[in-house]
Amino acid sequence: MPRIVTVAAAQMGPIQKADDRASVVSRMLALMEMAHARGADFIVYPELALTTFFPRWHYEDRAEADIWFERDMPNAATKPLFDRARALGMGLSLGYAELTPDGHHFNSSVLVDREGKLVGLYRKIHLPGHVEFDPERTHQHLEKRYFEPGDLGFPVWRTMGGLFGMCICNDRRWPETYREMGLQGVEMIVLGFNTPSVNSQRAAEGLEERLFHHRLSLQAGAYQNATWVVAVAKAGVEDGHHLMGGTLIVDPDGHIVAELPGEDDGVLVHACDLDATRFGKETIFDFKRHRRIEHYGRITSQVGVIEPA
Amino acid sequence: MPRIVTVAAAQMGPIQKADDRASVVSRMLALMEMAHARGADFIVYPELALTTFFPRWHYEDRAEADIWFERDMPNAATKPLFDRARALGMGLSLGYAELTPDGHHFNSSVLVDREGKLVGLYRKIHLPGHVEFDPERTHQHLEKRYFEPGDLGFPVWRTMGGLFGMCICNDRRWPETYREMGLQGVEMIVLGFNTPSVNSQRAAEGLEERLFHHRLSLQAGAYQNATWVVAVAKAGVEDGHHLMGGTLIVDPDGHIVAELPGEDDGVLVHACDLDATRFGKETIFDFKRHRRIEHYGRITSQVGVIEPA
Repeated sequence: MPRIVTVAAAQMGPIQKADDRASVVSRMLALMEMAHARGADFIVYPELALTTFFPRWHYEDRAEADIWFERDMPNAATKPLFDRARALGMGLSLGYAELTPDGHHFNSSVLVDREGKLVGLYRKIHLPGHVEFDPERTHQHLEKRYFEPGDLGFPVWRTMGGLFGMCICNDRRWPETYREMGLQGVEMIVLGFNTPSVNSQRAAEGLEERLFHHRLSLQAGAYQNATWVVAVAKAGVEDGHHLMGGTLIVDPDGHIVAELPGEDDGVLVHACDLDATRFGKETIFDFKRHRRIEHYGRITSQVGVIEPA
Repeated sequence: MPRIVTVAAAQMGPIQKADDRASVVSRMLALMEMAHARGADFIVYPELALTTFFPRWHYEDRAEADIWFERDMPNAATKPLFDRARALGMGLSLGYAELTPDGHHFNSSVLVDREGKLVGLYRKIHLPGHVEFDPERTHQHLEKRYFEPGDLGFPVWRTMGGLFGMCICNDRRWPETYREMGLQGVEMIVLGFNTPSVNSQRAAEGLEERLFHHRLSLQAGAYQNATWVVAVAKAGVEDGHHLMGGTLIVDPDGHIVAELPGEDDGVLVHACDLDATRFGKETIFDFKRHRRIEHYGRITSQVGVIEPA
């Protein structure tokens, strides 16, 4: 019997600075209804799904940015989302800024099963950008200012009949991300992203090049670990800054099986057979037969480049 | 001053079982002259450039396969190649089956600088295929029978004005390969391959899919490490078995800048600016700022998959 997960990648258009959580959650509920009507049993929302991409704003006092963080998940604002998903029998993943009871800040996402149980928490590990205001950039990208690097690794959870993992945005460019989960047998990786359509350090790069790198990283990660990858954008123009689209689903052979055009709210639904991961995992990427960890030492023993003499 | 390496990817058409080394070397010399005429100062030949892809043949007595191995490099057969390269002021890389004085067998490649000095030796680490005759396969792929896994890691050498690394064929599908060299600042990775155009365990896969995975792996490795990648095929029909082409050059942004059509002897020449690697290495893939080795532990501590409970 094939193990089908009918996933909905729920792209969100821009969220403006003035938009409150309630208005955002009502958009997310509308996307959930669309996804359910199209047969989805698992819905994935973007990174920082509840707010604008605030790391583009520089707050001299970092504590002022705490208005963008959630102290609980679910909380009063997001509970309708969790309740409705459970009522519809849908699993759920969404990204948000997490402020812990002991005062730590993370760029996080949760995984909730079809019975409404919070199964997994992921905290973004590869934070891009910088800590201090950088006058050289076309726009700021202060993730390293407002978040700490995730402290939970890249877990994989057995839920909804398969093996699921999460990562967030810039994590998708790093092969270590996929491999950590591949080594736990992951069958579907879900992630959200807020990716400026302009490289803040190379404005000439252009949107097409940004989308190319996005697709390339997702496709290689899927192929080289024989896993489904579901990537969901927050897109469009937020407070005058353009975020790219590119919501898409990659199969375990590395092919993009569906991609959502445009930069507005919308769902991309695809029935994913988790058993389609078996062939790759059992042949060319049968890690047990082929990996040679005795020659991978630099990957975990050194952070930066050490050139030969 | 830009640091330009004008590289020639010297694709070779098929080598039949009956072809002797001298006839093969004369073809390689002809390719070298073509490359030189087009301005190349570095020429890269395929994996197992001197012989047919013999791991498709099953020898009950493994020692019988020793006829395909070289005891020295250069040796009498290949010396004309090394001599001519030095006379032309060209660097050189070629793949061959290596039999060491103490009886070890490797699938190897060498790197020779423009003064004819043997700078580097690489021994293939990710051996695909199997050890014993497999009646289930459409054809045999006995690399694990005839070779030991390489024992030299993935070194990077400072030569010809840049930082160069090598890998071979199936190594290119493994992100660990590129990352090991990326962590040494590699600016150009060269590799040869002999890739059957039919997946021996999934005949329906087809040539286009094989080429897709080939390109995807090379492009992702180049982008994610901001390095040039030069991949050179032995192609065409060898003793009734079809090897795919796909000789190509990838820039440090992950774009294929040149690809050779067809499956015959031919050279693909491209002037590669090694400084084009700087932007990626200093921004999004500035490893020192962004890598988080504390979360990569599985990559070196476990070989195969360990699923969650």
